[in-house]
Amino acid sequence: MLGVIGGMGPAATADFFAKLIEETPATRDEDHIPTLIVSDPRVPGRPAAILENGPSPLPALLAIRDKLIAAGATLLAMPCNTAHYWYEDLARDCPVPFVSIVEASCDAVAEIAAPGSAIGLVATRATLAAGMFGRQLQMRGFAVTLPSEDELAGAILPSIRAVKEGKAEPAGVLLAPAVQALLDRGAVAVILACTETPIALDAIGSPIRARCVDSNRALARACVTRWMGRASDRADQSVALRSA
Amino acid sequence: MLGVIGGMGPAATADFFAKLIEETPATRDEDHIPTLIVSDPRVPGRPAAILENGPSPLPALLAIRDKLIAAGATLLAMPCNTAHYWYEDLARDCPVPFVSIVEASCDAVAEIAAPGSAIGLVATRATLAAGMFGRQLQMRGFAVTLPSEDELAGAILPSIRAVKEGKAEPAGVLLAPAVQALLDRGAVAVILACTETPIALDAIGSPIRARCVDSNRALARACVTRWMGRASDRADQSVALRSA
Repeated sequence: MLGVIGGMGPAATADFFAKLIEETPATRDEDHIPTLIVSDPRVPGRPAAILENGPSPLPALLAIRDKLIAAGATLLAMPCNTAHYWYEDLARDCPVPFVSIVEASCDAVAEIAAPGSAIGLVATRATLAAGMFGRQLQMRGFAVTLPSEDELAGAILPSIRAVKEGKAEPAGVLLAPAVQALLDRGAVAVILACTETPIALDAIGSPIRARCVDSNRALARACVTRWMGRASDRADQSVALRSA
Repeated sequence: MLGVIGGMGPAATADFFAKLIEETPATRDEDHIPTLIVSDPRVPGRPAAILENGPSPLPALLAIRDKLIAAGATLLAMPCNTAHYWYEDLARDCPVPFVSIVEASCDAVAEIAAPGSAIGLVATRATLAAGMFGRQLQMRGFAVTLPSEDELAGAILPSIRAVKEGKAEPAGVLLAPAVQALLDRGAVAVILACTETPIALDAIGSPIRARCVDSNRALARACVTRWMGRASDRADQSVALRSA
């Protein structure tokens, strides 16, 4: 089964689950990926840990990871950009493959941007401070275009809050100029490394959306690709369950 | 944690998860219900078991139930109307409470319809044949208004297929007259006991939607109510996880 470390927040986990189903080439229920989701919002806050030296969520994340593996997960994913600050610690010594949202997003970027080009990044303050998207892009030979403090505080963060309050359309109106500014400064594509931001741009039908990568959808797609490559494993499990 | 027996189909499980989050009175991630979801589409087909004497899904459903309990579930739900044909077998000897989508829907109906009045039912052929919604309504003193074969074969089932194909608006246009026909025959409210049908009516902004109960949303609401009544239990678990 695909094991999902979720709950950070729950809406991002639900968004990932819906996209996983959309991205699976299924014509019948049985074609879908058996999935095990732990959505536990009691994991200590990631922004506080990164920005304010708060308690680390790592022990709780490791406990969820191990619970998923004990319950039969053979592939793992964690639909939370900020929590990937602890990805190395979670993937190290992990007995099953763990798909990274950062690598999945950069793979998706590589499909629409040539090596050497600049990639914009839209994310929360904590994800930007954590730096893993920037590092991964640079490792792959991309330049990174970051939002200014004004764009972050005046447009990106308020638009994220607006989506959380159910105001997707005003959020899109706020966000679109900040994304456009990254493109104007030379970015050829933009990673929306925050679950709320694709919802905002979709709500206003923004044409710049086509130059953006939705990190949660990129993760869903990467999970489907990894799962499809393990068909024999799935067949084994199917037999096991049917005879249970 | 709330344990969810899911995957029948996966989209219905994702719909329930999103509604569970919407229905939770949360202002912060931590206010949400810790949730454990097994979405396993390999469970033998429910319609085939009910209508064509196919293999029973009960052993697989019991295995998922027990896996959820072993992993820490203290409350259970199963966001699939048809699978509630086996609810009695799943709830019997179950060591934790199991919220029924049938009872949750009838509770929601009781809020908008007086005892003794007639309630319409929109569902798949298998859910209608299984009869548990009709029995529960009659036990509570309601009369039941069922769709005719023409309404079922000509409108309800094609509209469900259309939603599954992503055509929500045409589905709504197809479905609305069939729901209206139930109201015209005397139903004062209608249970939409099939995940796709609220999506169809919502897509066309149908005013009759206000007289309908969405069974998946009723289940989500009932789970939130049950969970909120067990705050002390939640506090215990929170301490356990934080100290893990």
